[in-house]
Amino acid sequence: MAGRVLIVGDQAGGRILLMSRLAAARCQVVGTPTYGEALAEAGAKAPDLVVLDVAPPAGAAVGLCRALRAELGAVPVLALARAPGAALRQAVLTAGADDVLDRDCGDALLHARVRALMRARSEDADLMLREDTRDALGFAEPAAAFEAPGVIGLVAARAETAQAWRAALAPHLRDRIEVLAPTDPFRAGPAGARPDVFVIETDLPRPEDGLALVSELRSGPAGRKARIIALAPEGAEAAAAAALDLGADDAVAGAVEPLELVLRIRAQLRGKARADRLRRQISDGLRLAVTDPLTGLFNRRYAMSALARIAEAAAASGRSFAVMVIDLDRFKAVNDRHGHAAGDAVLVEAARRIAGALRAQDLVARLGGEEFLAVMPETGVAEAEAAAERLRRAICQAPFRVPGAAEPLALTTSIGVAVGGPAGAGGAGGAEGAAGASGAPAETTGLVEQADRALYAAKARGRNRVSLVRSAA
Amino acid sequence: MAGRVLIVGDQAGGRILLMSRLAAARCQVVGTPTYGEALAEAGAKAPDLVVLDVAPPAGAAVGLCRALRAELGAVPVLALARAPGAALRQAVLTAGADDVLDRDCGDALLHARVRALMRARSEDADLMLREDTRDALGFAEPAAAFEAPGVIGLVAARAETAQAWRAALAPHLRDRIEVLAPTDPFRAGPAGARPDVFVIETDLPRPEDGLALVSELRSGPAGRKARIIALAPEGAEAAAAAALDLGADDAVAGAVEPLELVLRIRAQLRGKARADRLRRQISDGLRLAVTDPLTGLFNRRYAMSALARIAEAAAASGRSFAVMVIDLDRFKAVNDRHGHAAGDAVLVEAARRIAGALRAQDLVARLGGEEFLAVMPETGVAEAEAAAERLRRAICQAPFRVPGAAEPLALTTSIGVAVGGPAGAGGAGGAEGAAGASGAPAETTGLVEQADRALYAAKARGRNRVSLVRSAA
Repeated sequence: MAGRVLIVGDQAGGRILLMSRLAAARCQVVGTPTYGEALAEAGAKAPDLVVLDVAPPAGAAVGLCRALRAELGAVPVLALARAPGAALRQAVLTAGADDVLDRDCGDALLHARVRALMRARSEDADLMLREDTRDALGFAEPAAAFEAPGVIGLVAARAETAQAWRAALAPHLRDRIEVLAPTDPFRAGPAGARPDVFVIETDLPRPEDGLALVSELRSGPAGRKARIIALAPEGAEAAAAAALDLGADDAVAGAVEPLELVLRIRAQLRGKARADRLRRQISDGLRLAVTDPLTGLFNRRYAMSALARIAEAAAASGRSFAVMVIDLDRFKAVNDRHGHAAGDAVLVEAARRIAGALRAQDLVARLGGEEFLAVMPETGVAEAEAAAERLRRAICQAPFRVPGAAEPLALTTSIGVAVGGPAGAGGAGGAEGAAGASGAPAETTGLVEQADRALYAAKARGRNRVSLVRSAA
Repeated sequence: MAGRVLIVGDQAGGRILLMSRLAAARCQVVGTPTYGEALAEAGAKAPDLVVLDVAPPAGAAVGLCRALRAELGAVPVLALARAPGAALRQAVLTAGADDVLDRDCGDALLHARVRALMRARSEDADLMLREDTRDALGFAEPAAAFEAPGVIGLVAARAETAQAWRAALAPHLRDRIEVLAPTDPFRAGPAGARPDVFVIETDLPRPEDGLALVSELRSGPAGRKARIIALAPEGAEAAAAAALDLGADDAVAGAVEPLELVLRIRAQLRGKARADRLRRQISDGLRLAVTDPLTGLFNRRYAMSALARIAEAAAASGRSFAVMVIDLDRFKAVNDRHGHAAGDAVLVEAARRIAGALRAQDLVARLGGEEFLAVMPETGVAEAEAAAERLRRAICQAPFRVPGAAEPLALTTSIGVAVGGPAGAGGAGGAEGAAGASGAPAETTGLVEQADRALYAAKARGRNRVSLVRSAA
């Protein structure tokens, strides 16, 4: 897998043994620091995974684990300890380790655990954007603000087992805990919510049933982004390893105390919430790419591609459609006299009035500056003229209250309208400059240019009026 | 997994048998049309997977397979046929099926194959954006334009086997084919290229070695996005099923003719290229969110967050930095006299000159209209004034050639400069309106407002000049 692993241990023999065991899993060991050197090495070597050899007394390793967690961000930490008891396991997990394994476990489990942590790391890296893009979009590392309670689904061979888990977990978790039927774990719970974390017995009742369930969850829309904790019987390391390789996020072979299970569930809930936030940021970022940040209207890029689609639909349906270019009159004077903040407030209010004067199916965009575009599907000349007139009145009939101006400001608007359609005369203009740069086909940019010329005619005729290109109807 | 499956077959008995076999894999069977009903049902039911029962004579099923492929886009099609020979297998794969299985294969392989296809479908759905966003960004379904040749990595237990594969494949593929050592398949090839598609023997030389390699590839950065075709020995259905569940994209138990392997490799290359395109579109889309589409400069959103970071760095380093607001003089006259295309050409050229007059480490953005922002890290008053003067000359010293204007246009610019720093006086202004909306902290927007006021002073003093706020130094 060629992932970069940092092996941390205070005993040379332990480090050397781990080096050879991890090399067999084709890991790239990038360093083998002692406890004292670990933090500096972790910062310098940018590992994908830290493997921490826990030597007694455990206090030093637990403290180091906490420090590594703070230093490493989302890089996973795997702790190995000799026959770790319940107290040590909980201490290490609480300190931020992703898992604690018995140092004497077989290579199959160790390798599968390392692979699963590497896989999680790669998925995380996929979701993280390039740093500059992230910063620019105001993302940075997503804040772990208030998290809504999650949903935990328990799947055990016998209903009594799952009920007992629930009784033991409930006092420690504020999340909803649901017992799911092993035959039908995909059915959403009573409230329709799908589990964020599944806890699954691997023996359900046959050994391979739980593993098949892990594969099924990973393959389908219902469980692909859920987290999975697989619980295998005492000594069933092969089943735990298989669960990890099939896509489980966490797996334990042997009895797990309720408090340890609580820690493991909480870690998976945190990881899931973080991944959900990162995915949300990506889709928010993409939405920003089509929005004018000041007014919240669509931007020119979106408008031009939407216009092309509306023109195509019109050609298919045989109905005409209207394009309006809307320009606030003498807007520059607002900026010059009252400052940019006042000008921006006027634009925001004008956007609100324009959108309010049109129908839900109409498209409204800000082309830039004080210029707006409206596209009205399935609209003829008379309707378009009436809408433009409504729009003109919406701007001039009440003054704009803005910060920095003692009195509300009286504003007017000039509007150019062109109507296109299957037989429309929209294809006249060339498509140079901005319109051409937007990638919209010549017919639609031609229509915008016609509306633009009509707008200039309205301005020339004294402003605060609508001008219509009749030839295009 | 709760995926939606459409079962297509002309024999009622075959459809009923498949229904029960797929229900055992917890699929949701959404329809069981005959061949004649299949296309309409596929359109109406929006399945995640189509399972096609191929009955002799095979011609009808092959034709239907081709039609389904055209109708369904990226929805996978799994064909089942009784003991399909080499010719039928190739015909069905050529017609666009994702796989063809023997109808008498065991449930383990059938279920694993279905899970793997469902998984691929879910991953594809993740990469597809919401349709409106995709359209707006000009994405649509990515065009399968010219694809650069891919890299294929062959991993077999014996080097002779891999060499023989290469000799058989080479005449049919224009891609680079590399024989990889099973002990070290992660090493990039001679030209440093990583395989797009791995073909892996599952017995390498022990049965589990190839499976471990599949898991390793899936977990690490080197192979996570590569495609994997697993080849298991004749009759080793369990190994093929395991490979699929561990993350292989395709798996065959039994001998594969070279022409069939060519078809399978080509299908994986196409799928990989498509996923790569979708991923690229997402990152391009995110880049658009920070860019001004006309000039290619950063937009206001990016500028404000970058400015906040530069201010933070300045506070940490104790060095001052400069902010310039740059406004083209009487720009509206260009639009009014020569049209928007000419105005846009002027803005593009002005952006080029502004960026050219500054240093690589300086930030240049278009704030909107004819207004630009420059931020110069580690810059004092004297340097800032000299840079602004250089910039002013870059605009006025040569006229602008633009389309639609008979003569080149002489333009000038007014520039307001403010210098901020650790002890800077930048925090004066409030942050209402646009600046506040950008999310930038008050100190940095205050500095932009100071530069803005200096700009207005430059305009008031007759334009084509630089005005500096000295108090901030």
